[in-house]
Amino acid sequence: MAEEFPVVGLDSAAREAVELLAVRRLPGLIVVGAKGEPHSVLPASQVVRFLVPSYVQDDPSLARVIDESLADQVADKLANVTVRRLLPSEPVELPVVNHDDTVLEVAAIMARLRCPLVAVLKDKKIIGAITASRLLELVVTPH
Amino acid sequence: MAEEFPVVGLDSAAREAVELLAVRRLPGLIVVGAKGEPHSVLPASQVVRFLVPSYVQDDPSLARVIDESLADQVADKLANVTVRRLLPSEPVELPVVNHDDTVLEVAAIMARLRCPLVAVLKDKKIIGAITASRLLELVVTPH
Repeated sequence: MAEEFPVVGLDSAAREAVELLAVRRLPGLIVVGAKGEPHSVLPASQVVRFLVPSYVQDDPSLARVIDESLADQVADKLANVTVRRLLPSEPVELPVVNHDDTVLEVAAIMARLRCPLVAVLKDKKIIGAITASRLLELVVTPH
Repeated sequence: MAEEFPVVGLDSAAREAVELLAVRRLPGLIVVGAKGEPHSVLPASQVVRFLVPSYVQDDPSLARVIDESLADQVADKLANVTVRRLLPSEPVELPVVNHDDTVLEVAAIMARLRCPLVAVLKDKKIIGAITASRLLELVVTPH
């Protein structure tokens, strides 16, 4: 039921994580600690938030009059930065399920926590993930 | 910059919307009103929530002892139901941008509203969408 899902470390290079999100067009990445233990989710929208200057976030109309392109700013912002810096101050919780949980058990946790992604653990190691749309696939398509 | 993105009507059959999420493995769909005007986003995680019985959401451990499979329940729950019924009581706002907005303008709105998806309008009609990961692609990959 679990599928392979990209995982990055808290101390990985931010630039690589962002390229992974971009190239594979993922809504988010799983972030793990030094021992491979699940830590949190890094949503792509959070990375966008990190990259946009705060004065532009406060007043999006400023975006129209700023000359420098976002692409130019991005290179600077991501240089020598780790994934840890990209995370929101209150990291997005990463729910975990066991590799032998049933579809209904996974759905129950997803529904309760309103999360689009759960990590799947076996012997305390992440072996993959289940997205909400993957779960829907399991329940609406004939097996 | 905008990409084609699946759109469903408020009064479309729920079953078809769920199949679209499942088959195309989307994190969500754009929902439009009767005249094609943008209404909201239907996140896949919200559909999971709709499908899981509320007593199981309240106590996920019940999921382990329930015999009936989720797939069996789903067919019943989705029969004769429209997309409108699937939406949360407070629909997820769908931010809109104009087709001629710059990357920085789109990023500013995404960052401010912390949304993973914006609809792109031209002459009041939705011509596509931009996801957060698409936006990252535009700023981190050389053009």
